[in-house]
Amino acid sequence: MQDLLRRLIRDNRELTERGNVARYIPQLSKADPATLGVAVCDLEGAFATAGDTSTRFTLQSVSKPFALALALMDNGPEEVFNHIGMEPTGDSFNSLTKLETFSSLKPVNPLVNAGAITTTALIKGNSQSDKFRRLMGFVRELAGEEYVGFDEDVYLSERETGDRNRSIAYFLRDIGALHESVEDTLDLYFRQCSIEVDCRSLAKMATALAALGEGLIPVEYRRIIRTFMFTCGMYDASGEFAIKAGIPAKSGVSGGIMAVIPGQYGIATLGPSLDAKGNSVAGIAVLADLSRELNLYVF
Amino acid sequence: MQDLLRRLIRDNRELTERGNVARYIPQLSKADPATLGVAVCDLEGAFATAGDTSTRFTLQSVSKPFALALALMDNGPEEVFNHIGMEPTGDSFNSLTKLETFSSLKPVNPLVNAGAITTTALIKGNSQSDKFRRLMGFVRELAGEEYVGFDEDVYLSERETGDRNRSIAYFLRDIGALHESVEDTLDLYFRQCSIEVDCRSLAKMATALAALGEGLIPVEYRRIIRTFMFTCGMYDASGEFAIKAGIPAKSGVSGGIMAVIPGQYGIATLGPSLDAKGNSVAGIAVLADLSRELNLYVF
Amino acid sequence: MQDLLRRLIRDNRELTERGNVARYIPQLSKADPATLGVAVCDLEGAFATAGDTSTRFTLQSVSKPFALALALMDNGPEEVFNHIGMEPTGDSFNSLTKLETFSSLKPVNPLVNAGAITTTALIKGNSQSDKFRRLMGFVRELAGEEYVGFDEDVYLSERETGDRNRSIAYFLRDIGALHESVEDTLDLYFRQCSIEVDCRSLAKMATALAALGEGLIPVEYRRIIRTFMFTCGMYDASGEFAIKAGIPAKSGVSGGIMAVIPGQYGIATLGPSLDAKGNSVAGIAVLADLSRELNLYVF
Amino acid sequence: MQDLLRRLIRDNRELTERGNVARYIPQLSKADPATLGVAVCDLEGAFATAGDTSTRFTLQSVSKPFALALALMDNGPEEVFNHIGMEPTGDSFNSLTKLETFSSLKPVNPLVNAGAITTTALIKGNSQSDKFRRLMGFVRELAGEEYVGFDEDVYLSERETGDRNRSIAYFLRDIGALHESVEDTLDLYFRQCSIEVDCRSLAKMATALAALGEGLIPVEYRRIIRTFMFTCGMYDASGEFAIKAGIPAKSGVSGGIMAVIPGQYGIATLGPSLDAKGNSVAGIAVLADLSRELNLYVF
Repeated sequence: MQDLLRRLIRDNRELTERGNVARYIPQLSKADPATLGVAVCDLEGAFATAGDTSTRFTLQSVSKPFALALALMDNGPEEVFNHIGMEPTGDSFNSLTKLETFSSLKPVNPLVNAGAITTTALIKGNSQSDKFRRLMGFVRELAGEEYVGFDEDVYLSERETGDRNRSIAYFLRDIGALHESVEDTLDLYFRQCSIEVDCRSLAKMATALAALGEGLIPVEYRRIIRTFMFTCGMYDASGEFAIKAGIPAKSGVSGGIMAVIPGQYGIATLGPSLDAKGNSVAGIAVLADLSRELNLYVF
Repeated sequence: MQDLLRRLIRDNRELTERGNVARYIPQLSKADPATLGVAVCDLEGAFATAGDTSTRFTLQSVSKPFALALALMDNGPEEVFNHIGMEPTGDSFNSLTKLETFSSLKPVNPLVNAGAITTTALIKGNSQSDKFRRLMGFVRELAGEEYVGFDEDVYLSERETGDRNRSIAYFLRDIGALHESVEDTLDLYFRQCSIEVDCRSLAKMATALAALGEGLIPVEYRRIIRTFMFTCGMYDASGEFAIKAGIPAKSGVSGGIMAVIPGQYGIATLGPSLDAKGNSVAGIAVLADLSRELNLYVF
Repeated sequence: MQDLLRRLIRDNRELTERGNVARYIPQLSKADPATLGVAVCDLEGAFATAGDTSTRFTLQSVSKPFALALALMDNGPEEVFNHIGMEPTGDSFNSLTKLETFSSLKPVNPLVNAGAITTTALIKGNSQSDKFRRLMGFVRELAGEEYVGFDEDVYLSERETGDRNRSIAYFLRDIGALHESVEDTLDLYFRQCSIEVDCRSLAKMATALAALGEGLIPVEYRRIIRTFMFTCGMYDASGEFAIKAGIPAKSGVSGGIMAVIPGQYGIATLGPSLDAKGNSVAGIAVLADLSRELNLYVF
Repeated sequence: MQDLLRRLIRDNRELTERGNVARYIPQLSKADPATLGVAVCDLEGAFATAGDTSTRFTLQSVSKPFALALALMDNGPEEVFNHIGMEPTGDSFNSLTKLETFSSLKPVNPLVNAGAITTTALIKGNSQSDKFRRLMGFVRELAGEEYVGFDEDVYLSERETGDRNRSIAYFLRDIGALHESVEDTLDLYFRQCSIEVDCRSLAKMATALAALGEGLIPVEYRRIIRTFMFTCGMYDASGEFAIKAGIPAKSGVSGGIMAVIPGQYGIATLGPSLDAKGNSVAGIAVLADLSRELNLYVF
């Protein structure tokens, strides 16, 4: 495995020259586009890694499956899906179009921004800081002894430039899908996006979603989360990724991708150069190659 | 004229039973749906009135043409139309769809909410309260000796329930169409909507847009405003009103409609029972009848 | 007037270098982009002309107001507007979006393609060729002694390449807005688009819409048609043209524009170089200048 | 298994009273809404069945995965996905919206009508009847000794009432996604929809997609088809079905659903009472129950 990963990094390194690092948050634009790393963690906790696995990055949208796990554990699926739909969309992650045209008056799914903001609002706690403490504790528990931190600069940068998310959140309030304070909810959402990991810790966290037996996240919720990752995890390229790589995954604009191979591995890649849809160019290639080499396809 | 107006009020009174008063702001839902009044003011300032002309109501969207006049006087048309488009839309007044799909990255026209919020942000002043003082002074000057007030309860109610407008304003900031603070801009916008008039004062104000010679509002800007009222003044029923009544008009969700007959009259109606598109059912009927009786059609 | 027109042609001639001739129908792409002509006809039938007024061109969308006139005369407004809406749209002329999202199940207005196809289907006749004979006779009567012909090549080219219009027409049938045969209706529609005129004949035809007293087209229908020309006559630049030129007009992709000055003139311009929205670049400029010089603004 | 199926049919029988049989094609409206059947076929060809398994029905959209298989075998995936996208949509199956707003100028995926029509056009043959012979032969080969027929009445009914599909096909031609004749392509498409099966034959056909080893359909294409069934197989309820039943499936408006359990079973249900999104109410319930009882979930 170690050799395979090294080869995949070497073969796909040149793809880091395609695409661009995210620019909509100033802090993210400072990332080195040439970075490329991958970590695979099996269900016993053994790692294989290659490339820049010590580079730290913020979770961004990769946080959404974990927030969903906590919201499911706090509220149960019935309550969660009273507020959030289950459909893939084909629209970009920050679109408001479906909100306006859908009669159901709820965000289409928990992995687009509108649904993720609603998910975050469902996390329980006595206060905003208590909610974040719970989420952070949950993530730390999943990561075990691996690195988990918090990037204060990214958080402040998100908060300052989050007008599209504010627009979405006020829209959610207007249609009755969000009952919490917009600024409080978004503060928690921006914090959740600013949780800092590296490829090793993210791969370790992914094993909690890959595991089949009992665990911190109940089996039924793992199944739900893997399904959403498969149908909506890669923004409006989710369908293409499902065909080409064929595994549940979730990407973020910092260039991280978390993939989950049920019963086998948690996987994390980092490659900050993004394609037009916001996914890591080289990260997608590494995962598609890995899936083909090891026949990891779900179907 | 007096007799004609009385007859039109009598004939259309039963239409007040159709439709519903606006409910999205609690304060507006207290209006009496049976109210119906009309005032016509000629360019010499002589009035003819009938029905409930002493009932006071807030301008709501009827304020938009006046805010546009002030923004044009403050900035000139070139600057204003750098920020705001000129196209009718066919979408509802609070839609974000065109914002998301239009490549021009500006609101479609100054009479939908998105464009009106941008217009309001273009009003000059040393502070928010200075800006509102200027707008209020402008409206008072147009109304002459007629009643102009401010409904504090409606303003607070608007501010409290204005989530859709907050969503629009943050969207405008995100696409770079709004550079001011959202809360400051909306505060001014909600204040502008909460200016209180009656049919007499609104008809008087309308004469400033109906006049042909020199006046407080420059001739060229009057022409621009009358054109927008004709193509986009009645929400997504503007086209139908242009065919059926054939005169420039602007409606508001408090049930007021202001119409402008170039070279002849300023007209105001009040009828809080609204149709599904947000226009006064009986007010539209009174104006269409009046237009037919006096052959006021622009075309 | 003659001198003014010559000056406007001279001043705007260089604008013919901007934009492009229509390419979606092969025949139209053969037009000379440098062509520019204007004709003004007063209500007594006296002409003033300048530039390339002998160049012949097909009516294309400029035929829509005349087909609407005939449909109104054949069916009355109530029947016509049972099938066609009255709203401007802001979408491009060949869009299907509003058809799909509007609950009313009818095309938004008679000047977008969907509405114009429905209009054409409402023209009465014992057969398709009888219907076209009636329309052609109507146009010839309006043009008086001026040239009216038919461009067989354009007609065949339209018919061969009319897939978008077929898509629209079958959509109209599906939603119940069109009851006639698609191919028959489109055949008539393509023929109507292929009627050939020059600036003189089109200006003469326009006087029938500009006239105020009795005439071939009833007064009420003239009013309706002028209103639609003002709110929806220039594709998705109708709002901008209404603000800048301020007169009712209808453009076509062959580069012709017909304008109507109620009580004064019928006007036609020809300039085959089109902007991105399908309107003649130089034609718009000539009309805007003429409107400013002679203060023709409706408002 | 036999007992389980009998219990599931008994338990879900009352759901056939909810929903309605499809009405948009007259022939389909004659189906008995009370019908409910299920057949499970294992990879050795052994059947378990319960309920109305002798009722015949037309494939309708259930034909799409098989047409896709043949198109892939005829052209290879690269050529097929030059013409058709891979994204789930969230819009209804006969929507044109994404076609108009997507810049890629191809239908979003092969299981919505627009994509399925394009798929059908990619099936090779010397003539239309040859193409259909090939498709019919392919389906017959998959069904083995089970019943496969053709419902001439449904075919004629489809052809007569297929205006929405004609609208879609002409749109595809206009954007350059379809190069074949519309009527020829739709004729083949309507024939494909009119292929007649029963629960046994459909379950048997499904095993060709469930199998893991070598077979008539290459392994790689089976994987692609199962993936599309999972992400887009149940119209705009695909996401919800993926969460709740968790298996790849494809439904049709005649009330049939085909499900595929990789390495285990082909499954077919029939229940003509459809929900608002076009899926069999009782069929969905039977599949969700079966999935839970046997833990068939993909994830």
